[in-house]
Amino acid sequence: MSFLGELLSTLFDRTPLSFGLSSKADQPIDAMMEALVKTNGETAGLALSRSILTQYDGLDDNAKIALFEHLAEKMNINPEDVETSLKNYNQNPNKKTYQAFMQAAEPRRQELFRRLNHAPGATAFLVRMRADLLRLGRGKPQLEALDLDLKHLFVSWFNRGFLVLRRVSWQSPAHILEKIIAYEAVHAIDSWDDLRRRMEPEDRRCFAFFHPSMPDEPLIFVEVALTHGIANSIQVILAENREVIAGDTADTAVFYSISNCQAGLAGISFGNSLIKQVAADLAQEWPGLKTFVTLSPIPKLAAWSKDMGIDLAAQNPDQLKSMAAHYLLNAKSHGQWPYDPVARFHLGNGAMIHALHGDADLSEKGIAQSGGMMVNYLYDLKSVESNQDKFAEEQVIKSASDISTWAEKFAPSI
Amino acid sequence: MSFLGELLSTLFDRTPLSFGLSSKADQPIDAMMEALVKTNGETAGLALSRSILTQYDGLDDNAKIALFEHLAEKMNINPEDVETSLKNYNQNPNKKTYQAFMQAAEPRRQELFRRLNHAPGATAFLVRMRADLLRLGRGKPQLEALDLDLKHLFVSWFNRGFLVLRRVSWQSPAHILEKIIAYEAVHAIDSWDDLRRRMEPEDRRCFAFFHPSMPDEPLIFVEVALTHGIANSIQVILAENREVIAGDTADTAVFYSISNCQAGLAGISFGNSLIKQVAADLAQEWPGLKTFVTLSPIPKLAAWSKDMGIDLAAQNPDQLKSMAAHYLLNAKSHGQWPYDPVARFHLGNGAMIHALHGDADLSEKGIAQSGGMMVNYLYDLKSVESNQDKFAEEQVIKSASDISTWAEKFAPSI
Amino acid sequence: MSFLGELLSTLFDRTPLSFGLSSKADQPIDAMMEALVKTNGETAGLALSRSILTQYDGLDDNAKIALFEHLAEKMNINPEDVETSLKNYNQNPNKKTYQAFMQAAEPRRQELFRRLNHAPGATAFLVRMRADLLRLGRGKPQLEALDLDLKHLFVSWFNRGFLVLRRVSWQSPAHILEKIIAYEAVHAIDSWDDLRRRMEPEDRRCFAFFHPSMPDEPLIFVEVALTHGIANSIQVILAENREVIAGDTADTAVFYSISNCQAGLAGISFGNSLIKQVAADLAQEWPGLKTFVTLSPIPKLAAWSKDMGIDLAAQNPDQLKSMAAHYLLNAKSHGQWPYDPVARFHLGNGAMIHALHGDADLSEKGIAQSGGMMVNYLYDLKSVESNQDKFAEEQVIKSASDISTWAEKFAPSI
Amino acid sequence: MSFLGELLSTLFDRTPLSFGLSSKADQPIDAMMEALVKTNGETAGLALSRSILTQYDGLDDNAKIALFEHLAEKMNINPEDVETSLKNYNQNPNKKTYQAFMQAAEPRRQELFRRLNHAPGATAFLVRMRADLLRLGRGKPQLEALDLDLKHLFVSWFNRGFLVLRRVSWQSPAHILEKIIAYEAVHAIDSWDDLRRRMEPEDRRCFAFFHPSMPDEPLIFVEVALTHGIANSIQVILAENREVIAGDTADTAVFYSISNCQAGLAGISFGNSLIKQVAADLAQEWPGLKTFVTLSPIPKLAAWSKDMGIDLAAQNPDQLKSMAAHYLLNAKSHGQWPYDPVARFHLGNGAMIHALHGDADLSEKGIAQSGGMMVNYLYDLKSVESNQDKFAEEQVIKSASDISTWAEKFAPSI
Repeated sequence: MSFLGELLSTLFDRTPLSFGLSSKADQPIDAMMEALVKTNGETAGLALSRSILTQYDGLDDNAKIALFEHLAEKMNINPEDVETSLKNYNQNPNKKTYQAFMQAAEPRRQELFRRLNHAPGATAFLVRMRADLLRLGRGKPQLEALDLDLKHLFVSWFNRGFLVLRRVSWQSPAHILEKIIAYEAVHAIDSWDDLRRRMEPEDRRCFAFFHPSMPDEPLIFVEVALTHGIANSIQVILAENREVIAGDTADTAVFYSISNCQAGLAGISFGNSLIKQVAADLAQEWPGLKTFVTLSPIPKLAAWSKDMGIDLAAQNPDQLKSMAAHYLLNAKSHGQWPYDPVARFHLGNGAMIHALHGDADLSEKGIAQSGGMMVNYLYDLKSVESNQDKFAEEQVIKSASDISTWAEKFAPSI
Repeated sequence: MSFLGELLSTLFDRTPLSFGLSSKADQPIDAMMEALVKTNGETAGLALSRSILTQYDGLDDNAKIALFEHLAEKMNINPEDVETSLKNYNQNPNKKTYQAFMQAAEPRRQELFRRLNHAPGATAFLVRMRADLLRLGRGKPQLEALDLDLKHLFVSWFNRGFLVLRRVSWQSPAHILEKIIAYEAVHAIDSWDDLRRRMEPEDRRCFAFFHPSMPDEPLIFVEVALTHGIANSIQVILAENREVIAGDTADTAVFYSISNCQAGLAGISFGNSLIKQVAADLAQEWPGLKTFVTLSPIPKLAAWSKDMGIDLAAQNPDQLKSMAAHYLLNAKSHGQWPYDPVARFHLGNGAMIHALHGDADLSEKGIAQSGGMMVNYLYDLKSVESNQDKFAEEQVIKSASDISTWAEKFAPSI
Repeated sequence: MSFLGELLSTLFDRTPLSFGLSSKADQPIDAMMEALVKTNGETAGLALSRSILTQYDGLDDNAKIALFEHLAEKMNINPEDVETSLKNYNQNPNKKTYQAFMQAAEPRRQELFRRLNHAPGATAFLVRMRADLLRLGRGKPQLEALDLDLKHLFVSWFNRGFLVLRRVSWQSPAHILEKIIAYEAVHAIDSWDDLRRRMEPEDRRCFAFFHPSMPDEPLIFVEVALTHGIANSIQVILAENREVIAGDTADTAVFYSISNCQAGLAGISFGNSLIKQVAADLAQEWPGLKTFVTLSPIPKLAAWSKDMGIDLAAQNPDQLKSMAAHYLLNAKSHGQWPYDPVARFHLGNGAMIHALHGDADLSEKGIAQSGGMMVNYLYDLKSVESNQDKFAEEQVIKSASDISTWAEKFAPSI
Repeated sequence: MSFLGELLSTLFDRTPLSFGLSSKADQPIDAMMEALVKTNGETAGLALSRSILTQYDGLDDNAKIALFEHLAEKMNINPEDVETSLKNYNQNPNKKTYQAFMQAAEPRRQELFRRLNHAPGATAFLVRMRADLLRLGRGKPQLEALDLDLKHLFVSWFNRGFLVLRRVSWQSPAHILEKIIAYEAVHAIDSWDDLRRRMEPEDRRCFAFFHPSMPDEPLIFVEVALTHGIANSIQVILAENREVIAGDTADTAVFYSISNCQAGLAGISFGNSLIKQVAADLAQEWPGLKTFVTLSPIPKLAAWSKDMGIDLAAQNPDQLKSMAAHYLLNAKSHGQWPYDPVARFHLGNGAMIHALHGDADLSEKGIAQSGGMMVNYLYDLKSVESNQDKFAEEQVIKSASDISTWAEKFAPSI
């Protein structure tokens, strides 16, 4: 399949089209956006797209907000058109009336985004633009609505079928690796030596999803340790002088860090696929692996306990553990869903709560967010799908039997 | 950029997910489609997608029509929901109301298609499915409307920003080359030796667009001859014993064949981009190239002349030439656009009519469709964009001065 | 390891050195060869090498012979220098005296060949040159001796450690595949369709050795059929309408054709490594494979029987089989080694004679050379090494028990 | 040419041969070496090679010396055999007698080394072994002579025709980049950030030679700065906050660091080819480049001046400059060749002395070795070959006119 490989390596190597220069490509950005939606010309369109990309990068936040507002207002659907076209379609459903309805029901900015994407490198640009929009639009109903259009497009473009799972290793390009350093959000990588300890040994793995149009940008990545038995602290996993084990003697794969890389892809979920695909790949490479488990933070335990009026620091180890068990099983937000976002993610994927470990993350951040407690979520091949269904439909949280025992003992010092 | 290359070479190499088997994956295809749209589970979804793909391939045409009708009726928009959600949005435009509207205005089958695409290889499947739909749905208003949903998705997925231009040569994989043989629609390739004559010599080139998710399938390709001056017949270009010229002595690139490969991508235009990108690439590789020109068939000349009551075979060479000139400049369909589809394509891209050649295609097909006449459309770097605009807005057809002179002499024998 | 891949893809893409032009590069070829051995300059050397390569390709056979004779005489060792330097080394063995000896004992033409090889593409050139030498030098003692120098160099350059085993498939480049067609020496490939039947189905494999400096030239290749049980005729394997079996159901790999590709690499043995490496790779890919066996011609049976005064065509099937068994076990050439070259090869690799099949190759060639008989040589993982040793040291031929039974029945009609 | 790429990416991915285990592979290393030279078996040979490689890596220096002495004595040529075979050849020169001579004149250890190289990864092993030999054999006549055999083989294996020139950049694999850090011998790279400053900006380049069989090991590399005019200090080139210039505005390529990477390849010259090939490649990529020049240390200036009884530190800037000019033009070693090794290298390649710069390397090392002086050697496209010839034949050192003027002023403070 190297043909594909070589084929794609030219994705961004396009020779600039030299067919004329568009005189329209030197106007205010909103005017160029209007022109881009209207133009018939490929060359003109590309010239406009390039100018828009360049001009956008020079805008300050206020100008960006103004631009987003322009998109939200001036390139929105026209409700009357929707209504009329819907009526026509209803009376006479055929290709023509349906096309008219589709066109009316889709705001023009969607076509704008699609056309912008014709320019080389534009996909990454649009992802950055959405990151701006999410940051600047918070609390502004119009802009929050506008975001749905970008998100709708991204759900289509970043379809699982277009993503590529790829191992990242010490043999990967440095410009990719430095992004792993930058994007690691759970247990910070503090140097190239630290990175190397996570990438090079044969009992350490890292996998990421990439999109063909953003080949230099990982979308999400997971770090995995192959171990004998389930690791009970992050210190053990990240220790500088630990002994490397032979991959074919490992019985357990510990997913100890998952990081989303692109703020502009918020809400477009990859993590679910990533973990399962990585588990499937590892199981095939190392038939000895029997257990697939996370070693996860409990990021909101401290926040929740504070809300409860409980002083996390005042709890003895057993109290802490029973509090964590209670919290994971019973604390809810949005009504029925687990309060803890990491719990929500893994339980939503069909994992179960397997074990709790005190003094498992002694970093400043680990102590602050959960008093050092960490949790293993277990991906059990046989039950992951039924777990997922029960959690989705009835919010059933599956856990090892002693977790509920610990939860029942919940009696914090106050 | 080889990282990208290698990255993508794994696109279809996914290890099957081994997390459970979905019991839903063994039902009638329409039931599975309903289940797929509703499921929360990644694994269940993949299992359903795979079953749907497999089952679909076993359907006969009647069953396919029934399935399409199911999609058209049962997974359509609900007009009342659209209306209600539109009203709510109108009264209170915010994220929530807009989301409700978006959801109502998009038929559920679009989500179905996106989910189907999660499975490895599904993009090519969906393209084949649309080919079926176009073939089977002709004249059925419901199915023609249904096609708009697939087309809408494909316009987004096959966005120019995601396409890869790639040279196809004698060093390309045989399984790609055999598709070039199969898909050549203008001047049939009758053997591997014929193919080789078009691929191997240094004065012959072939370029194709590919999509990362269908790496084994060219989408469209163009064949180019590098020449001294403008070739005046296809026989000269395809001659078995012609003398190969050194690429760096050529002054002209003749685009002598353009073929769309995927019936399922009808109406999603790539040709425009292809020709311009190839011209830009060739100009960079061979700075000596000054002229970019097609050698094109006139596929509907015979059909039009028959409609006019003119016997093509009865014309002398000059009559034929003046008729062709008149036809290209003046014969219209759909009101204002050129009657000839190839003319429509190149003029729409900003090319001009440059020259007419008699006895230029002496193949049976060439004689039958145009009495052997062929035409050069010239892509003039300096004027292509303004040509394109004038054609799009005012239907102005630019041509070399003697073309209109010939057209004025139009006086066929009847 | 894609870095390597990309790294090597530039092997022949060298920008010509533009540092001056050598005035020496326009002389008779033997003068340039002398100049090349003497020059200090990289650029001058490259210019000379290129000129030599070009001039050589224009020589006729007589001129080539003259050139080889020049190399044999004028660039030979000087026996007196060898003697003197050997004496000095003997008296005072150190770096300086050893170096002097090494230099005297190696003819200057070896340095010439090494320097010629600096030019891009020169390795393939030297291989072709040796093919000429072998063809033109036959029976000429001087030139046969000269060949030993080229062979000595090639043994070093085409060291197993530098060879790359590579699957050739229907996804391989056409310019490689056409060489497979050209080089197939056992069962001719008569069309691209025939090639495709051997390359594309999942129960057919082809593997070749390549050298990094001749990436477009297979050195040797083997064709393999994955089967249920051992195939008893080549017709069964090459049948156009045979049923393809699933690779993971196969229990046997049949090596049905092995072809050397480069006349200029005669005597540099790769076949041994190739078969064993391919068997190891197949065994890893398809753990169900238990038997690795050839389906081989008996190319000299007819020639031998004629020498014996036996009319091959007059034998009934049993007589033919007993004759073949007798021939394989007992007919010798060069004193102790099997008369049959294919037998010599496989027995020398440690295979054993497993079974004989009549009417197994009904092609004209098959009938002519062995009356249609073919033989399976079995590569038995457990005994291949001890077989190899016993054959090498004591000329023991291992065979299935019924082979010797058949041989004992040898009683041809005369 | 991606077929080559992919082809080679499997170079080290060999499936271990599973055909039996050699009982010979568990003996003392010298016995295994004897066995390896004698064996007929591919599998046995590989098993022996692997065992030898493994056992060697566990030897201490004394054991290595003993092993080298074994090779020097027991696997040496036999002078009597050489003499006899030479006499036979002389009397009757033909293939057989010449072969006998060749065999006698080549010590058995050369065959040993070739056979060792059959094992995957063995080339890098043999290079490391030679590094040991050079280190441990210094001053031991036998071992110095032994080294000539390894060197002879390496000259053949690392033939320019087999080397691959490759850009190393910030997109290269981290495991290659860390070797660049480790091997940089001129201006140390002190961190990944420092490395990045030399690899990533568009006006910085790094190129290395690789060998297909050691794809993870650069052999030699050069670092290049694209500049406006000739840089007059290394500080300017390595400054952290310098302004990056656009590659297409540069007129000069400054080769500011060349480092050999493999101690075991000492004496096998690549640098000559490297500089010229890189210059040719850069000239093609950036037609604006007109000047190709080094910025080189003068590593032995201080040592020489000390020998002369001159105190380097006591000279004023002008005295230092005139001393450096005098030194480069007139100081000799080995009779006629420049005393300075870097001067010897570049003048031997055909460069000329272009300019001297004081305070050009203010690092501790720069001050210590040359009082901070550096020199530009100019590679002038038009004269490089004639310079090279004149230097090689008559030791003529070409220099800019003011260099000799400075040299004439040589009047150091003592």
